[in-house]
Amino acid sequence: MSDKTAITPTRAQDFPEWYQQVVKAADLAENSETRGCMVIKPWGYGIWELIQQQLDRKFKATGHQNAYFPLLIPISYLEKEAEHAEGFATECAVVTHHRLEPQKDPVTGKIKMVPTGELAEPYIIRPTSETIIGAAFSRWVQSYRDLPLLINQWANVMRWEMRPRLFLRTAEFLWQEGHTAHETKDEAITETRLMHGVYEEFLKNHLAIPVIPGEKTENERFPGAEMTLTVEAMVQDKKAIQAGTSHYLGQNFSKAQEIAFTGREGTKQYVHTTSWGVSTRMIGTLIMAHSDDDGLVLPPRVATQQIVIVPVTPKEDTKQAVLDACQALAETLRLEKKYHGDPVRVHVDARDIQGGVKKWEWVKKGVPIRIEIGPRDIETRKVCVQRRDRGSNEKEFMDKEDFLQQAMDILQEIHNTLLERATSFRDANIAPCYAIDSFHAHWGQDNPGWLLTPWAGTPEEEDEISKQHKIAIRCLPLDKQDEAEAPCILTGKPTKSRAIWGRSY
Amino acid sequence: MSDKTAITPTRAQDFPEWYQQVVKAADLAENSETRGCMVIKPWGYGIWELIQQQLDRKFKATGHQNAYFPLLIPISYLEKEAEHAEGFATECAVVTHHRLEPQKDPVTGKIKMVPTGELAEPYIIRPTSETIIGAAFSRWVQSYRDLPLLINQWANVMRWEMRPRLFLRTAEFLWQEGHTAHETKDEAITETRLMHGVYEEFLKNHLAIPVIPGEKTENERFPGAEMTLTVEAMVQDKKAIQAGTSHYLGQNFSKAQEIAFTGREGTKQYVHTTSWGVSTRMIGTLIMAHSDDDGLVLPPRVATQQIVIVPVTPKEDTKQAVLDACQALAETLRLEKKYHGDPVRVHVDARDIQGGVKKWEWVKKGVPIRIEIGPRDIETRKVCVQRRDRGSNEKEFMDKEDFLQQAMDILQEIHNTLLERATSFRDANIAPCYAIDSFHAHWGQDNPGWLLTPWAGTPEEEDEISKQHKIAIRCLPLDKQDEAEAPCILTGKPTKSRAIWGRSY
Ligand SMILES: [Zn+2]
Ligand SMILES: [Zn+2]
Repeated sequence: MSDKTAITPTRAQDFPEWYQQVVKAADLAENSETRGCMVIKPWGYGIWELIQQQLDRKFKATGHQNAYFPLLIPISYLEKEAEHAEGFATECAVVTHHRLEPQKDPVTGKIKMVPTGELAEPYIIRPTSETIIGAAFSRWVQSYRDLPLLINQWANVMRWEMRPRLFLRTAEFLWQEGHTAHETKDEAITETRLMHGVYEEFLKNHLAIPVIPGEKTENERFPGAEMTLTVEAMVQDKKAIQAGTSHYLGQNFSKAQEIAFTGREGTKQYVHTTSWGVSTRMIGTLIMAHSDDDGLVLPPRVATQQIVIVPVTPKEDTKQAVLDACQALAETLRLEKKYHGDPVRVHVDARDIQGGVKKWEWVKKGVPIRIEIGPRDIETRKVCVQRRDRGSNEKEFMDKEDFLQQAMDILQEIHNTLLERATSFRDANIAPCYAIDSFHAHWGQDNPGWLLTPWAGTPEEEDEISKQHKIAIRCLPLDKQDEAEAPCILTGKPTKSRAIWGRSY
Repeated sequence: MSDKTAITPTRAQDFPEWYQQVVKAADLAENSETRGCMVIKPWGYGIWELIQQQLDRKFKATGHQNAYFPLLIPISYLEKEAEHAEGFATECAVVTHHRLEPQKDPVTGKIKMVPTGELAEPYIIRPTSETIIGAAFSRWVQSYRDLPLLINQWANVMRWEMRPRLFLRTAEFLWQEGHTAHETKDEAITETRLMHGVYEEFLKNHLAIPVIPGEKTENERFPGAEMTLTVEAMVQDKKAIQAGTSHYLGQNFSKAQEIAFTGREGTKQYVHTTSWGVSTRMIGTLIMAHSDDDGLVLPPRVATQQIVIVPVTPKEDTKQAVLDACQALAETLRLEKKYHGDPVRVHVDARDIQGGVKKWEWVKKGVPIRIEIGPRDIETRKVCVQRRDRGSNEKEFMDKEDFLQQAMDILQEIHNTLLERATSFRDANIAPCYAIDSFHAHWGQDNPGWLLTPWAGTPEEEDEISKQHKIAIRCLPLDKQDEAEAPCILTGKPTKSRAIWGRSY
């Protein structure tokens, strides 16, 4: 087997550059001339459409409805919740004018467009919509009978970004933001946990990414939240990515925005709100979690195409028969096979270019199953099956009928393989740590994994030790808050709680 | 039958105010504090989701792929195509800063957020994306083998609006914009006509709106286009709404933006581009086309819910049995029935409020079929059927089995009725006109309909007579450009062409 890889550099040589090259080779996205903003190309947008469809069904199944709120938020809205304002002020795109006027440059004589029509109150482009949706909620809620409000929005948002990176950190990104309002704290917390669970299940069963569900410490909470739940993924350079968050906002926003109602006893009360979201960052996460030195590896449920059929046509006189056989197989699959309830997505690559070029293109695009059919295969009723979870040159000849029978199982096997690999990798790279010396030493390594430690420090202590090693507490894992009492890694205070520390994107 | 209507005023009394009240009573959308921007509420957004899904399938079936391009466009892009820049300059939201800083007001002591971080080159929020997508196309196209590019984007856009109106004219709106690039003029024109046809079919078969497909005159073309095709709808005050447009842009954008390729003969050539779009304005159009004095009337294919079942529960002891019967019927419909290929959308309204209140709510929300089931109906296996295309108090008792059998046909009958009504109304309100005196007199009436006249005037002549009567040539209908020769209504020049004139939104 050759050592040559389709992507240069490899993960081991230069992980950040490998990532850029995988994105490029798979034709997922590219930079634009708008600072920090990307163009999501069809192959990448296809993944987002599938994420949207599948999450949207889960939101609807849990009683949420979609709605749409303005892109522009009056600056005064942001002034209402101080912590929230502070959290987003340094990264807001501000709209100050509402027209352009052509002006002739006195020197060059060229026409330039100049902003005019200054606005009395500027607007910001939403970095998130708590404030503007809160303003709507305050109009919509009068009585406890109007509750709960269970709303989701699919939208673009903008957070000015000085060091952009495709998918992972872009000034504009696409996301969904759930916003709900409840009569009681209990109900709101139940909602926060419910959506946290939806994200965990989605990442595991749809993206093949095992995540650690946990709570953020005060330092890492969403600006304005009382509790932030997170699902943390480990990618192949052992860094953490926060793949989704669900916040209990208490009454912070409802008091700042007068989202009040007449309760069951006839008294005025403030609602308890939540918000929760995932974004196109998830695509960056799945690339870094699964891809290899030959390029993108797509989990089958979100693969833009799940099966690509490549006709092998060495001779003119058998070409049409081969093409027909490929189209017929594709049609049969599309009509008869469903993977997790959706018709399987099959593409026939009938382009008039060399077979090897085609093959490597689909390898780099991460297609789960590649099929080749040539003139001999028609006679023998065989197909040549190649799987993206196996070596790029491994192939298996199968009876066409067997393949048809097993195709959906193969997709599921590929999903399972990706999930198992990512789980083993993660588990091999989380180490418990009880001694401060080894804690300090750990972060001096190249690509250190995560540490799991007893923790009972203050936010200030956490902040100091985090800065020292450029790390953070990624989360307090939900299932590790009632462990055997042990001394806090830093302060020595006895605690039953454990924290996960790591570097992150 | 009572004269009382659910909406006040009626269409006849005050059409614009009736429209606002229909939107409000159906809970479709509301104004926000962001100037000219609306909040689309769940019932309204549900309609948009259905429009999206159904159009998206048609776009994909005709070979298009979705992608996503930046929200912000560098001002310099707009300077490249002069006509285009001029067309949009007066309605652009301009981003000039990228952060906010808290400042203490020296007088009040209050904290105010002030824009800082001025941008060297400001951005506009996309009013449409020809320029930024053109910049991407110029990177993507090198050879004729890269063509055609067939791209669509679902996005929000912004055009500053001084006199906003929910759905019809809002500063921010949602839309799709198709952008394609082709090797030859012929191919690009074929694409322009193809998508024009897709819109016509969609409006007729999905929204029950009969439209007149035609071409815009030079005066009414999209800024930068060589040819603009439109589908024009007549609503109930006899005004016209441009429901969708498809533009052949020639080489105007490709030359301004260097979208060039090496052709089959090895020479450098510029692509021919097209763009085409429909927006949330379509929801305004369908409201005005079909609704009546009792509120919204939804064409079944885009009805957020198609069937609403209301349990009638006069007595506690039969209540559960009635609720169960309603849920069972809903489940049977959802599992067994498809309307145009999609599972039928059924809602059971189990709220603990008065039946009459429920009924009128669903009337005003435009639900095509309302079903009532009471304790007696369970025994007799009957359901009470009410249809939104009939009088609000008309009801028909049907055997439950018959209803199940016929439900999809009833939905289609409702669609057909709406389409026939709108078609008769439109046809009754388009009059041919050959004499300039009657032409002038026509526009003095209240709510004048459309006129169809021979036309061979210049753009200047068209402009003058249009301003005089606050009208426009809505289109040159495609099927009326080879009529018997007749003298132009204004100039007397003989012509085979006909134009449709009308007032519009
Ligand atoms: Zn699932
Ligand atoms: Zn259709």
